[in-house]
Amino acid sequence: MPSVRLFRQWARAGSLVLCSAILAFGTAQASEDHLRSWKDGPTKKAIVEFVKTTTDKASPNFVPPGERVATFDNDGTLWSEQPMYVQALFAFDRVKALAPQHPEWRTQEPFASVLKGDLKGALAGGEKALLEIMMTTHAGMTTDEFQQIVKDWISTARNPVTKRPVLEMVYQPMVELLAYLRAHGYKTFIVSGGGIEFMRPWAEQAYGVPPEQVVGSSIRTKFELRDGKGLLVRLPELNFIDDREGKPVGINQHIGHRPIAAFGNSDGDRQMLEYATTGSGPRLGMLLLHDDAEREFAYGPANGLPDSHVGTFTQALYDEAKQRGWFVISMRDDWKQVFPSSKEQTAR
Amino acid sequence: MPSVRLFRQWARAGSLVLCSAILAFGTAQASEDHLRSWKDGPTKKAIVEFVKTTTDKASPNFVPPGERVATFDNDGTLWSEQPMYVQALFAFDRVKALAPQHPEWRTQEPFASVLKGDLKGALAGGEKALLEIMMTTHAGMTTDEFQQIVKDWISTARNPVTKRPVLEMVYQPMVELLAYLRAHGYKTFIVSGGGIEFMRPWAEQAYGVPPEQVVGSSIRTKFELRDGKGLLVRLPELNFIDDREGKPVGINQHIGHRPIAAFGNSDGDRQMLEYATTGSGPRLGMLLLHDDAEREFAYGPANGLPDSHVGTFTQALYDEAKQRGWFVISMRDDWKQVFPSSKEQTAR
Repeated sequence: MPSVRLFRQWARAGSLVLCSAILAFGTAQASEDHLRSWKDGPTKKAIVEFVKTTTDKASPNFVPPGERVATFDNDGTLWSEQPMYVQALFAFDRVKALAPQHPEWRTQEPFASVLKGDLKGALAGGEKALLEIMMTTHAGMTTDEFQQIVKDWISTARNPVTKRPVLEMVYQPMVELLAYLRAHGYKTFIVSGGGIEFMRPWAEQAYGVPPEQVVGSSIRTKFELRDGKGLLVRLPELNFIDDREGKPVGINQHIGHRPIAAFGNSDGDRQMLEYATTGSGPRLGMLLLHDDAEREFAYGPANGLPDSHVGTFTQALYDEAKQRGWFVISMRDDWKQVFPSSKEQTAR
Repeated sequence: MPSVRLFRQWARAGSLVLCSAILAFGTAQASEDHLRSWKDGPTKKAIVEFVKTTTDKASPNFVPPGERVATFDNDGTLWSEQPMYVQALFAFDRVKALAPQHPEWRTQEPFASVLKGDLKGALAGGEKALLEIMMTTHAGMTTDEFQQIVKDWISTARNPVTKRPVLEMVYQPMVELLAYLRAHGYKTFIVSGGGIEFMRPWAEQAYGVPPEQVVGSSIRTKFELRDGKGLLVRLPELNFIDDREGKPVGINQHIGHRPIAAFGNSDGDRQMLEYATTGSGPRLGMLLLHDDAEREFAYGPANGLPDSHVGTFTQALYDEAKQRGWFVISMRDDWKQVFPSSKEQTAR
């Protein structure tokens, strides 16, 4: 695996379009040119018109800055979630890293399968097995230690299919959209089923979203004094699942506003979009459809796409989107460019 | 009771120093003149020097803006908590408002005592009785409805001893301190044992702290669709107690940073200050001592002051403050002015 030093070099060199894009978009005068990775068409038009109507003081739809809250799912909405959630890759790597201290894992499921690289076997135990892996790999250390473990891991982690760094598989058009909204006085939040403490260490670098604007699932923590110093220990107990019905609950708990715009890509985001788009005044709901096998992955099963157990976008959700006036973003048709790499084949 | 209309007039008229102070301080060039209600002395000096050393790029103690996180307790730190917590007054008023729908309360404790105005009797049942009052008055409605109930109530609520509006019993020096920190790139958060949804409807007006920067205790909520519209129903079940050991936990959950400065006034804030002040780099911890019977209230029992069951500041906490280098703010000696009213006797 590449070293932390390599990550530092990579970050310093500024070779990643992403970093400079965030800086440029965050500070420059805002205009729709910021959405340069979006193709002209109804989706981009809807975004630009929504932002115009909510930020123009003369508009009947004007929304004061404090109420301009936009929420974004993470997995499959801001970065790739195939062939499986990045956090699951992290958990499996942690099992391997911790294995020398757990000789019993060589014969004990689900750990034995993880160590053999047999992911199907590891997941055969269903949710219970996955929860056991999560609790074993995500608890037992302080929050400061966990943050460092995540930072170290993410700096070298690669997608098992594309072999690209996972941090280079964020979606360039969504990074632009986040910056575009912020440039128009919006507060942007991540609201993910993923772990809140797994996302915070890198979300600001990747998306320009600071830790206090990340909402996610969590385990319990406990305050302790060690040698007079205060710290929080991560406990192997679930605290909150920020998915499906949990998303509006998490939004209310952390943000305290009903969002006026929400972006997702799967059935886990349905309630967040229902909550965001049924308040009074102007509302925007958008779902990203992964219909681009060439540049990323194609899965649904909505719209006749292949079924997926990761990030499922059902036909029922697709139908609800049409009925409620949510926009479906077609990765294939709406995006000029998918990832922030300059190696991208697509014209800009 | 005064009407909502009166509140609107009062808010519009701008007669409240508070509102204009927030606006002025939030936008003006930052300088220590902002702390005009603070007397010159070691406490004010410590604040100004801490802000200087953490925001001067040439200083070895420079802290980047994203890490400039300051947390404030609410009751007894930002506004008066005597003769009892404002939220308890709210709960008792709600019992009275709901009584016509609950004829059984006339004979059922703790409600019967509340309805007779016998607060000692109401609290005779201890925590269990208080919890019953809270759940009955704080649950059963939607979050939107509860927000409106709080807004309506707080616009007319008065302190039972001073008869002043509770919103005019915020501490002017602390409002100035919040604005002073924000003007220097700090993010200011409220971290209170009080209810998160009780504070959010007025915290921005009173302190310049938006809903997403308020952390507090909470009950559970549940997402529902009613006639196709998404809403959250407040359930009579505790979710989280943001007090004592809970404060660092709440800070980590909501903010995801260890604060570099923390402000409190009672034993409930001990762990928050321990957590904030034992990280690496520059740290500031301050506790407000209510030693001013003339202008507000005097209670401890620290420093020989009268004992109080509301907002207890024990001698043990006082001793820990001295040992850890936390500053104790003397309301009597450090503040020129306590409340934002122009009626204040004290010279400015």
